[in-house]
Amino acid sequence: MFDKGLLRNLGIKGGDNPSLLNSELIEKIYGQGAFECPSIDQEHKFVFSQSRPFDLIELEQLLQSVGWSRRPLRRVKRALDNSLLKVGLWRHDSKFPRLIGFARCTGDGVLEATVWDVAIHPIYQGSGLGQKLMKYVVKSIQEMGIKRITLFADPGVISFYKSQGWLLEPKGKKCAFWYAN
Amino acid sequence: MFDKGLLRNLGIKGGDNPSLLNSELIEKIYGQGAFECPSIDQEHKFVFSQSRPFDLIELEQLLQSVGWSRRPLRRVKRALDNSLLKVGLWRHDSKFPRLIGFARCTGDGVLEATVWDVAIHPIYQGSGLGQKLMKYVVKSIQEMGIKRITLFADPGVISFYKSQGWLLEPKGKKCAFWYAN
Repeated sequence: MFDKGLLRNLGIKGGDNPSLLNSELIEKIYGQGAFECPSIDQEHKFVFSQSRPFDLIELEQLLQSVGWSRRPLRRVKRALDNSLLKVGLWRHDSKFPRLIGFARCTGDGVLEATVWDVAIHPIYQGSGLGQKLMKYVVKSIQEMGIKRITLFADPGVISFYKSQGWLLEPKGKKCAFWYAN
Repeated sequence: MFDKGLLRNLGIKGGDNPSLLNSELIEKIYGQGAFECPSIDQEHKFVFSQSRPFDLIELEQLLQSVGWSRRPLRRVKRALDNSLLKVGLWRHDSKFPRLIGFARCTGDGVLEATVWDVAIHPIYQGSGLGQKLMKYVVKSIQEMGIKRITLFADPGVISFYKSQGWLLEPKGKKCAFWYAN
């Protein structure tokens, strides 16, 4: 099944089927619901999946490549198991797909969802993949009926979120976020 | 069982058993693990419970009393079911306990927890119950092994959280929070 609405949301215009990969092949490699992420990259193809299992070492390497600190794999595994949504973005290869993007969210599945661990590997940044990843994440959360989505942004990515319509706080009614050690 | 460490954390000093209510009675009315919240209030007694079921209408009335907007009860029920932790603070009455405080948290139970819907009924504000509620919530989350706890604060309660050791962002590495509509 080809979600044209989603492709439009992802910024794809014109043409009935912009996919370059066979959708059966995609689902075989990346699991149910996986689909190709449109990209300006001439050399590689990219695939979104919520069902292909993650290699935890590969995932942590990806998150470290964007500057986050190492976390115990056993805890990461449990955190993933308890997440509402986990999205992988894979650089397509029939035999050795490589995880180059990731995001997950936690929440109650009804009123609140909070996005964590958004990452695009530095090599693949700057070509719109992060934007498409976030659009897909937001759309998937909205499909659960959740109206308010929250995230905590590092200073370096504020303009990235702002350009996508996220509202910066403090401002208006809500004000700030805090954390305890 | 009487958790003296917790009572110390809640600001109770001296004496072996500051509880005024029979702990068996408390558990009978408020469920397993319930315990009396020490209070300076001479007139009423208060009890924390994670296991006494909530009357959803009473809960939403409490949240509205602190200024939040109405939410569909069916969605609230599902959100509670999917929360990591739900704490009620009850004004004790053997027959008709009244819910006068509440907090819940969502998260993956391992790496991240986010606190929502913290409320103390206006009539009971100003006597330290909110502070004790938050200490209990933070301690319960920390017991899950979670190191980072987050919340989104309304402007009016920033000094409340600041006085309890929560760190305001933006500052340092993390920066801000955003939400999408």
